[in-house]
Amino acid sequence: MAIQVSTPKGTRDFGPAEMNRRNYIFNTIKEVFHAYGFSQIETPAMENLSTLLGKYGNEGDKLLFKILNSGDFTSKISQDDLASQNYIGITNNISEKGLRYDLTVPFARFVVQHRNDIVFPFKRYQIQPVWRADKPQKGRYREFYQCDVDIIGSKSLLNEFELIQIIDNVFAKLGISVTLKINNRKILSGIAEAIGEADKFVAITVAIDKIDKIGLEKVEDELRANGLSDDAIAKLRPILTNKGNTDETFQLIESVIGNTETGKAGIEEMNVIFGYVKAHKLGINVELDLSLARGLNYYTGAIFEVKANDVEIGSICGGGRYDNLTGIFGLKDVSGVGVSFGADRIYDVMTQLDLFPKQTDEYSKALFVNFGQAEECACIEIAGKLRNQGISCEIFPEKSKLDKQFKYADSHNIPYVIIIGENEVCNKTATIKDMATGKQTSIPQDEIINFIK
Amino acid sequence: MAIQVSTPKGTRDFGPAEMNRRNYIFNTIKEVFHAYGFSQIETPAMENLSTLLGKYGNEGDKLLFKILNSGDFTSKISQDDLASQNYIGITNNISEKGLRYDLTVPFARFVVQHRNDIVFPFKRYQIQPVWRADKPQKGRYREFYQCDVDIIGSKSLLNEFELIQIIDNVFAKLGISVTLKINNRKILSGIAEAIGEADKFVAITVAIDKIDKIGLEKVEDELRANGLSDDAIAKLRPILTNKGNTDETFQLIESVIGNTETGKAGIEEMNVIFGYVKAHKLGINVELDLSLARGLNYYTGAIFEVKANDVEIGSICGGGRYDNLTGIFGLKDVSGVGVSFGADRIYDVMTQLDLFPKQTDEYSKALFVNFGQAEECACIEIAGKLRNQGISCEIFPEKSKLDKQFKYADSHNIPYVIIIGENEVCNKTATIKDMATGKQTSIPQDEIINFIK
Repeated sequence: MAIQVSTPKGTRDFGPAEMNRRNYIFNTIKEVFHAYGFSQIETPAMENLSTLLGKYGNEGDKLLFKILNSGDFTSKISQDDLASQNYIGITNNISEKGLRYDLTVPFARFVVQHRNDIVFPFKRYQIQPVWRADKPQKGRYREFYQCDVDIIGSKSLLNEFELIQIIDNVFAKLGISVTLKINNRKILSGIAEAIGEADKFVAITVAIDKIDKIGLEKVEDELRANGLSDDAIAKLRPILTNKGNTDETFQLIESVIGNTETGKAGIEEMNVIFGYVKAHKLGINVELDLSLARGLNYYTGAIFEVKANDVEIGSICGGGRYDNLTGIFGLKDVSGVGVSFGADRIYDVMTQLDLFPKQTDEYSKALFVNFGQAEECACIEIAGKLRNQGISCEIFPEKSKLDKQFKYADSHNIPYVIIIGENEVCNKTATIKDMATGKQTSIPQDEIINFIK
Repeated sequence: MAIQVSTPKGTRDFGPAEMNRRNYIFNTIKEVFHAYGFSQIETPAMENLSTLLGKYGNEGDKLLFKILNSGDFTSKISQDDLASQNYIGITNNISEKGLRYDLTVPFARFVVQHRNDIVFPFKRYQIQPVWRADKPQKGRYREFYQCDVDIIGSKSLLNEFELIQIIDNVFAKLGISVTLKINNRKILSGIAEAIGEADKFVAITVAIDKIDKIGLEKVEDELRANGLSDDAIAKLRPILTNKGNTDETFQLIESVIGNTETGKAGIEEMNVIFGYVKAHKLGINVELDLSLARGLNYYTGAIFEVKANDVEIGSICGGGRYDNLTGIFGLKDVSGVGVSFGADRIYDVMTQLDLFPKQTDEYSKALFVNFGQAEECACIEIAGKLRNQGISCEIFPEKSKLDKQFKYADSHNIPYVIIIGENEVCNKTATIKDMATGKQTSIPQDEIINFIK
């Protein structure tokens, strides 16, 4: 009797069908990254805890998976800590490494560690799993892939536009209709400044971010609870209720924040970025959206968020400009900009809209039925020729009942079954069954390649 | 000032150049796997410790990286365990998960967990990192990739031959000249039985395995120390000193073990396998090597080992037949056979023999020099066309000194630099510099694609 085995809570196996579809997504994204000259890096799953701790806030520190030191660690556990249930203190003494929580901090560590070998601007992408000790729930896993692309060491806004082009290309290739929303942290700062509440910047952006979900009234309640004056809230109202298109929104912010220095800088940046967008043809909608805030506080300039037009699922890609990412490791003034593609959500959108090409679910193009030694020998030769022509194929490994062999072909979506029995060996022919139509055709063996191609 | 940051001991970053080369190896291997109809799976980095413990021996258990349970674990640490330095007992109470040690046990767990969804024979490959808390040293890492390919649920020896073909194809594509050595656990058992020391099977195989390294005399000393009689050792001597070719070796074992039941079965299997090898043309040498033992004791039939002919580096691929892998999880009688490619060693062999194609070190095909806004605008349009034709290219993101831009192209092995300045924008021409020869050519902009292709 097989015993009950499972993956740890919140983690998943990916079987052949899921892997084919995931690879289709990753390969499409990689192809676009390569077209723009980005190169891949990988960092270790484990980082020193000194690299990770303090980078994601207190909550994040708790969500790090920590790895127990090897060997006898008992002398590192103090009676005092044990008595006072100071498990964080004990953890720090018996664990030096943790699993990476995202790809951003390891990337910053990579840039700082290898800064003397890197010729900037550095265009890198990275596709690797990350781990978070979050409570697992639908759509939230403890292990999931991130897919990050960044240009670091250049302040040029052409980089922002290049990422917009990449987003455009990726979703065009995947067949997902999307809208790209852009905002700018400097505009958000300018707004806070213009309404006389510069010190409440974070509370204001958090509230703005919720407008779509909870509505104007509750946002205003929240702002009031955070100590904003009625006057400031009144000034903010046109921003909160703005439904204008990009040109109208530009006019609105010009009038509200055109006098603040940060605001002006933000408007100027967005003018350049939207200048690129207008001058060069894109397939996606690009909108200036003042309600876009994005949580991470290391962003300093443009911020991006992509939503699927036909599925309600939240953002499927997002990112922004950060002026000081490597500052956490003491390397100042290395500005960068990047976005991250959400592979799991893209997978869900494509499944829901049935966007995966049919071939994604295929493994081999052809299965050779196995009738025994003599027939198998002929099949091995022909299979070799097919493979040389780039046609994947398999020989059923043993002489089994025909229906078992056909069932195998069927369950693996193999489109052609090639039958070479005694007669066919003699006549140098093959009978090919098209599994979709059920039609059988007898042809000379040396025409199999053309038939299948 | 940047602070000192590093990857944890025994782990590595892979930068763009290494990733290109590693991807070249993995993509080549994957291409061959796909040609034979294998499909990819992935399992989580973490497994429950109940899945991992006891599968790799006591030494292996110690080398597992264990993950600390989240939250307050202090109540799980008993005073008694602490006082007696029972760190293994404490570990079992405060850690439930570990990082995978290899891909074999997770694969067995996968097969058992998903047995009702799998249509056997199951042909899978898996390329993922594994982690071992080994003492790091040259060529031995705490995180490294394994690349396993297995057929499970079929006893047919055609599977063994298919793996031989895969090995042949992979190393032909990579350009590495190799020798494949094959032996059979049943032959080794037969030998132990034939010399009257069946119960010393393990000691005998361990000793045989060392013959190349320590020589006949020391192997015989070791056998004697393990309690083998002089008579048994004398009977074993022809095996130990055998230098015959495959046919001669077949004759030798026939004469030594042809009377034992297990031995006979082993010879029969090897006859079938070498029958395939002789009937179908292969590019690699395939040898029957009686001194091949391989350490892992779950092998039950054929065992394989591949060595590079031109570099001394140990085995670069190996594996074998196992009749009861899923037995560790209670699922009996699922026979399988598989091999594992050693990516790190293959990388070293290819680097040493300079076997990576030149294109492996390229990122983009072309760099557009940036002269400012008007020129950039023309470059964006042309770059888009190049990318549509599958030509990777980049625009330097900002107007910088020319030598900085050329240095960038040079350090990234970009073969063509495209110069579109004021004049070129006007005339719709481009000056292309071939970075290898230094030659500059002026051509109409709409001929750039053909020029580079």
